Amino acid sequence: MKKTAMSDDCFVELFDTPLHLDNPSGSSLSGITIAVKDNIDVAGYITGAGSPTWRSRHGPAESHAPIIQDLLDAGSILTGKTHLDELAYSLMGANAHYGTPLNPQAPTRVPGGSSSGSASATAQNLCMIGIGSDTGGSVRIPASFCGLFGLRPTHGLLSNQGLVPLAPSFDTVGFFAADLSLMQKVAEVVGLLNGEEKATPHLSFPDPFWNLVLPDVFEDLVVVRRSMASYGNSTTLFDRVDFDQLFDTFRTIQAFEAWQALGPWIQEHRPNFGPGIHERFQMAAQVQEHAFAQACSIRQDWTDDLLDRWPDNMLICIPTAPGPAPLKQCSEAELDAFRNRALRMLCPAGLAKLPQLTLPLTSVQGAPFGISIMGKPGSEPQLFQAGFELINEKVGSS
Amino acid sequence: MKKTAMSDDCFVELFDTPLHLDNPSGSSLSGITIAVKDNIDVAGYITGAGSPTWRSRHGPAESHAPIIQDLLDAGSILTGKTHLDELAYSLMGANAHYGTPLNPQAPTRVPGGSSSGSASATAQNLCMIGIGSDTGGSVRIPASFCGLFGLRPTHGLLSNQGLVPLAPSFDTVGFFAADLSLMQKVAEVVGLLNGEEKATPHLSFPDPFWNLVLPDVFEDLVVVRRSMASYGNSTTLFDRVDFDQLFDTFRTIQAFEAWQALGPWIQEHRPNFGPGIHERFQMAAQVQEHAFAQACSIRQDWTDDLLDRWPDNMLICIPTAPGPAPLKQCSEAELDAFRNRALRMLCPAGLAKLPQLTLPLTSVQGAPFGISIMGKPGSEPQLFQAGFELINEKVGSS
Repeated sequence: MKKTAMSDDCFVELFDTPLHLDNPSGSSLSGITIAVKDNIDVAGYITGAGSPTWRSRHGPAESHAPIIQDLLDAGSILTGKTHLDELAYSLMGANAHYGTPLNPQAPTRVPGGSSSGSASATAQNLCMIGIGSDTGGSVRIPASFCGLFGLRPTHGLLSNQGLVPLAPSFDTVGFFAADLSLMQKVAEVVGLLNGEEKATPHLSFPDPFWNLVLPDVFEDLVVVRRSMASYGNSTTLFDRVDFDQLFDTFRTIQAFEAWQALGPWIQEHRPNFGPGIHERFQMAAQVQEHAFAQACSIRQDWTDDLLDRWPDNMLICIPTAPGPAPLKQCSEAELDAFRNRALRMLCPAGLAKLPQLTLPLTSVQGAPFGISIMGKPGSEPQLFQAGFELINEKVGSS
Repeated sequence: MKKTAMSDDCFVELFDTPLHLDNPSGSSLSGITIAVKDNIDVAGYITGAGSPTWRSRHGPAESHAPIIQDLLDAGSILTGKTHLDELAYSLMGANAHYGTPLNPQAPTRVPGGSSSGSASATAQNLCMIGIGSDTGGSVRIPASFCGLFGLRPTHGLLSNQGLVPLAPSFDTVGFFAADLSLMQKVAEVVGLLNGEEKATPHLSFPDPFWNLVLPDVFEDLVVVRRSMASYGNSTTLFDRVDFDQLFDTFRTIQAFEAWQALGPWIQEHRPNFGPGIHERFQMAAQVQEHAFAQACSIRQDWTDDLLDRWPDNMLICIPTAPGPAPLKQCSEAELDAFRNRALRMLCPAGLAKLPQLTLPLTSVQGAPFGISIMGKPGSEPQLFQAGFELINEKVGSS
């Protein structure tokens, strides 16, 4: 196995001169610094995608990704680009070429990925908003591990232009913040809070998600779940769900799309992948079109049925991950086991294109542990409403 | 009484274009946003000092205060200037002309002052570092009230050039941050951590300070004090201290110096002061030179004796304030009573020119409550060392 790089930097580069418009059209993000995952285009800078080979084969981006332009138009200050897992195809935050960004809330543990650097920079207060991308959990996992708010928006509401693709039917830009009000401002700026006034949401707790956590944190989570009892009741919405089938479906579609998106480039340039990434792309190359088609059909049927049974204005509240961040010294096999369990919990949002907001509500074994709220597509305004209600209990003013 | 202004803004102005050097000589604060109390000069901007009259009678500053230049040289980004109590002569954070900045950790309570806007902006994550000034507690109090780290450096180590004076023998620039590592970087940049390697400090608890807290938080503080028992023992260093005499001494010197510094301007321009400020300057105008001289003599004797008895490498740990932030609806009389009790706890650092670092270690009555460490002049490196030890227990990594 290739020796792991030692750096715990979160930045690929901190810009010499922070990017800022002299006369932005808006001011709601004036004075707010933003760091961007290095798989999203910033004009004039190479988008490196966590791969030295990718970086060396690409020139500077010609224009900003639309999401970056929106944030600059609102007055924000772009300070740098952040590390990620190689080609974003991992969840733990380690990059064999560039190192593992620091998890400042739990320095002996991984930060989570693939948006590792943006999460690390935000958690270290080196930026106020971190921009990431989330295919299978790449915003939600590092947010949970680093004690941050993390938003995976409804798939398709934000432009993916200027984002290096991994699996386009799941890929979405997402955000980290240490402050929910600030996250809400960003959501507003990028257009996630438009649309008609929504009714007050009510929270429900689907037990099957809570039963997916690791055995050694199960007891802690029972206590957390009980402390939230006043916020809502159990729901049977996910009682018939076969998480193993969903996971297979997700993995098949992700792998097929990843090879469609990146296979030709990989075959041409033969990048020297770090551990795990190589195996994952090898697996991806094997997925046949009929398996993909079958998975797409399962996805569609499951989603249709789920959204049909899902009452409007109901949000569900679930653990974000099966446990706190694994220790850095864990073996690849242990990390893979964690990852496979995590993806069972994370894939429903991806498959059904649901928005998910993770909140830094608790800690387990001395490390952060996120609790998520998830809703039907377009329910972002209600996610924020419920999010503020949950954290007000925690940060409680007098 | 003049009607209180309604705004809860923390910024006097957010700069249209954030200030930043294209080729800063350092990079330790690259990407870090800073907001500056509006009694400190930023070239090209009027320094308003929390007084509409002062603002209308002064032109833009010709150069940056040296402290601002240092921070820009280290790569930081200056985003705006923040509100303060009128001419910095108050502790609660209300300004009759501009309103009371929001205390985001306790919205029904005052933010503390006089560096109210810098504390509010930092606590709201609208900047990463807040610059304030501290004469009698103007950094320490709002840091305690808003749940922030706050540093009053050793008097005389930082230049006061470009700072509107209040009482020069006490005035010092100081800092707010939500993150102690970031505060340490700032301390390093401005030269507070130079000098020879210091021995490991040991903490001691002077009971007379702990006995000065308000009766209704006394029990809570006993619990806090007990939870810190493993960090050090009681010290008798302050057992002979007459806090009433120190308070009188501090107030006499502060008032005399304030009138020396600002009296001629006040007499010429007759500003329309808000409640409390007018009375305080009227009192200041009455202090006679012989009373000032006597107070200076008491100050010198007390300081000499204290520093003589203070073991090297000993730091003391004390409550920062007599209670959490008062409610906004408190009467002027109630606020004055709080202020007079607070100044008894705060004046020793001012009189003896001691550095004091307040840490957001606890909360009382649902609102933040700071715990301070204080050392002999120049002990900043040790304050940070002890500070990290105390917060590691709290933010605890696994």
